[in-house]
Amino acid sequence: MVKFTGKIFSKKFATTIYGAEQKFATKYSICLYTHVDKPCGINVNSGGKIEIMKIKIVCVGKLKERYWREAIAEYSKRLTRFAKVEIVQVPDEKAPETLSPAQMNQVKATEGERILSKIKDNEYVFVTAIKGKERTSEEFAQKIADLTTYGHSNLTFVIGGSLGTSPAVNQRGDDLLSFGKFTMPHQLMRLVLIEQIYRAFMINSGSPYHK
Amino acid sequence: MVKFTGKIFSKKFATTIYGAEQKFATKYSICLYTHVDKPCGINVNSGGKIEIMKIKIVCVGKLKERYWREAIAEYSKRLTRFAKVEIVQVPDEKAPETLSPAQMNQVKATEGERILSKIKDNEYVFVTAIKGKERTSEEFAQKIADLTTYGHSNLTFVIGGSLGTSPAVNQRGDDLLSFGKFTMPHQLMRLVLIEQIYRAFMINSGSPYHK
Repeated sequence: MVKFTGKIFSKKFATTIYGAEQKFATKYSICLYTHVDKPCGINVNSGGKIEIMKIKIVCVGKLKERYWREAIAEYSKRLTRFAKVEIVQVPDEKAPETLSPAQMNQVKATEGERILSKIKDNEYVFVTAIKGKERTSEEFAQKIADLTTYGHSNLTFVIGGSLGTSPAVNQRGDDLLSFGKFTMPHQLMRLVLIEQIYRAFMINSGSPYHK
Repeated sequence: MVKFTGKIFSKKFATTIYGAEQKFATKYSICLYTHVDKPCGINVNSGGKIEIMKIKIVCVGKLKERYWREAIAEYSKRLTRFAKVEIVQVPDEKAPETLSPAQMNQVKATEGERILSKIKDNEYVFVTAIKGKERTSEEFAQKIADLTTYGHSNLTFVIGGSLGTSPAVNQRGDDLLSFGKFTMPHQLMRLVLIEQIYRAFMINSGSPYHK
């Protein structure tokens, strides 16, 4: 049993604790976050309880082409080394080019309600948005390391439908996350996101990862 | 035969010329850039000669997984509606994590020479680089529209290897192009790039394209 001490160790130290070092960490009640001896990432919440990291991606609409499904399945599989991964798809609304602004807002609101119905109160929510905060991969990794250090074990990432996310979804977001100024198809956004999450965990674990 | 007038028309006008409007454009010697009645994009160079648009992507290393190959083949195929598409792969150098800075520069220089050997003088070269200019999809589309208006028919896009591009390659670049602050695997960069090129042509043609 590992007890949360509230003390924050350097990333380098916190993420290289395993094997013999893990025994040391346990002996000295260090807040640790490791994933070498366990199938999942471990986090210690503020009550001192050990929790498995959970990564949830809530997105709108299905993946049609096989290459999207296979690519995302591959990164999802790799990510299970660090966390329990869940991808939740909610149905999309039809959004032809001819919609009025009011109709577009209605589509976003309907999809937004479906998204919000899949999110619990204890989840830390990133909402992807072009106008969100842009980070380097290292900054994003640091953000995730900080969240886990502070006891967040449920990280949820939202990708809106083709028109984007509703104000209600953005309001629920704890962080608006941008992957650049350009517009991507939502399937590609899913792939970019899951690859970046995987990359963040690889960076935080000090593992080499080919660019 | 369409003669280059040197006059620049609004994007809206220039990209909706087809059918009956194309006859009007031809009659009045308008520099046009269309792809509805032709399999390829048409450009008129500064000498008044009509040229087929050529898009070349020069990249380092092979695509290992099937999903990368299939996804990139799909966008490559879609893009042939607008241009002749060529993807040129040059061999990568081994780049383990243990390389010294001097060795890393050597890897980039060697890969850079291979890249440059595939580029001719008449090509307008975009080099992808995290620290390049970030654009929205609309701004990128406008950039391409401007280049074609000014008679550039050979657009080349370079994606470096895992360590990035050499100074010599960056020097040859007419434009340093960034798709956000985050680091991507080079396979994913290829997919993001080709999707954005396709999107740019779709925007310039006024075609609806699902996000």
